[in-house]
Amino acid sequence: MTLPALLLALAAPVQAAAPSPADPIEADWRTIPDDEIMIITLADGREVVVRLAARFAPEHVANIRKLARAGWWDDASVYRVQENWVTQWGDATEKKPLPADIARRPAAEFEIPAFTPAQRMTKSDARSTASGFSADGWPMATDGKAAWLTHCYGMVGVARDSLPDTGTGAELFTPIGQSARRLDRNYTIVGRIIGGMGHMASMPRSDAPMGVYADPGERTGITSVRLASDIPAAERPRYEYRATDNPRFAALIKLRENPAPPTIGTGGADVCEIALPTRRAG
Amino acid sequence: MTLPALLLALAAPVQAAAPSPADPIEADWRTIPDDEIMIITLADGREVVVRLAARFAPEHVANIRKLARAGWWDDASVYRVQENWVTQWGDATEKKPLPADIARRPAAEFEIPAFTPAQRMTKSDARSTASGFSADGWPMATDGKAAWLTHCYGMVGVARDSLPDTGTGAELFTPIGQSARRLDRNYTIVGRIIGGMGHMASMPRSDAPMGVYADPGERTGITSVRLASDIPAAERPRYEYRATDNPRFAALIKLRENPAPPTIGTGGADVCEIALPTRRAG
Repeated sequence: MTLPALLLALAAPVQAAAPSPADPIEADWRTIPDDEIMIITLADGREVVVRLAARFAPEHVANIRKLARAGWWDDASVYRVQENWVTQWGDATEKKPLPADIARRPAAEFEIPAFTPAQRMTKSDARSTASGFSADGWPMATDGKAAWLTHCYGMVGVARDSLPDTGTGAELFTPIGQSARRLDRNYTIVGRIIGGMGHMASMPRSDAPMGVYADPGERTGITSVRLASDIPAAERPRYEYRATDNPRFAALIKLRENPAPPTIGTGGADVCEIALPTRRAG
Repeated sequence: MTLPALLLALAAPVQAAAPSPADPIEADWRTIPDDEIMIITLADGREVVVRLAARFAPEHVANIRKLARAGWWDDASVYRVQENWVTQWGDATEKKPLPADIARRPAAEFEIPAFTPAQRMTKSDARSTASGFSADGWPMATDGKAAWLTHCYGMVGVARDSLPDTGTGAELFTPIGQSARRLDRNYTIVGRIIGGMGHMASMPRSDAPMGVYADPGERTGITSVRLASDIPAAERPRYEYRATDNPRFAALIKLRENPAPPTIGTGGADVCEIALPTRRAG
């Protein structure tokens, strides 16, 4: 079968080169701490792996770690899948008591202390004056005053009620479809899905209000949510990300902004077009 | 169940108000010509509705109409679903002979004659200096020299081989996930999915190269592709779009760019964040 070659070239998600001792990119891989990896196991055994943004949302991530350690999500579900918007999971009843040590109303962590990217996108976008990536690969943006992590496809946010401090981390969502940048500065971002995003993105959509499944039978069960650090060392999966504070990552961004001819580029790309390369180690 | 109210407010896709004689928006609805509506019926009976961009890609749409009238896709399939990239359909073998009257190498229709939006987005984005919507709702952008339709989520493009004029319209794709704006000016856009996009977006992803299902059994069959104009009038579905050349649509854009407090906005939004409201008539 003849595949469209140019589409192939354009289509390739940002991928790490195959590991090779001679590859200079090999030196750019960094270990993700085990307590920043959260593994969601679905009822059918498929796994979704979340990297936690512990540094940027410490209060919410503290709650999330406690919830995982308490096994609080072990009978949870994916209960909302709204087309071209979000997949959301947690306790569908929103009535399950939280463990005693969970902060009920952690302060909103919508913004981050400063815009300190190791790599900047060349052009501004419609929702910020500058954007880029932290050295450890989190996408961020600024308007020159505030700074925030961006709601790109696959980022993980904290669902909440109308008041800013009403999300605990027990209910989480990820944007599926067109990016959800209009949530920037309005929701706390706690992570990014680095494995199994296709599972979250391909669940049946609901036509019910907000995409919340009307029939509990439509939900996808979650059997467990565990931190990698709580898994016995011998069985523990380990993950790495590609550091951005080096010329190799800068080149990766430039190539997305200025693709090789004959592909026509525009000299710019949106920060959400670049998914940080990550991989399972070992 | 307590639903997150603010998420509800932010989450609502751009929707038409419920029809009401007193609603001024009612006057903004326009009929989509029957020969610009293409209905893809999947093997399980679900339908995907495509609005054709006949005015912007006349040569490719001419091919597509001929293929539909010839029943060429009646044993086709969705054979490629690449996570956070595209769903693609047509003849998985790429060997099925085309009808005699199909242009084998139509000229590329990557760009449009001019940037003539009825409504402009307030801010530029990373991939253009200006963007907006034609009066009949097609998203477009410019760099001040050329103009083009934008590869937003749900737009329909012509798959092709490496040479620009190698796509006929027989193989089509739609971006799923983060927008595919880097395809702008490199692929011919022939339409937008206005119904059933969730079906295309929720098919199982393939881990095979380019997301092309390795096992033919993974494909989703297509039983027919028909133009609405070729369906007997009594059974023919009719669709409408909301015209953009009026203050009501301008207000819709402004609200997306400057949401009502307490939601924080940035004064700008990406053209791909706004999906033209459409509806089935009658």
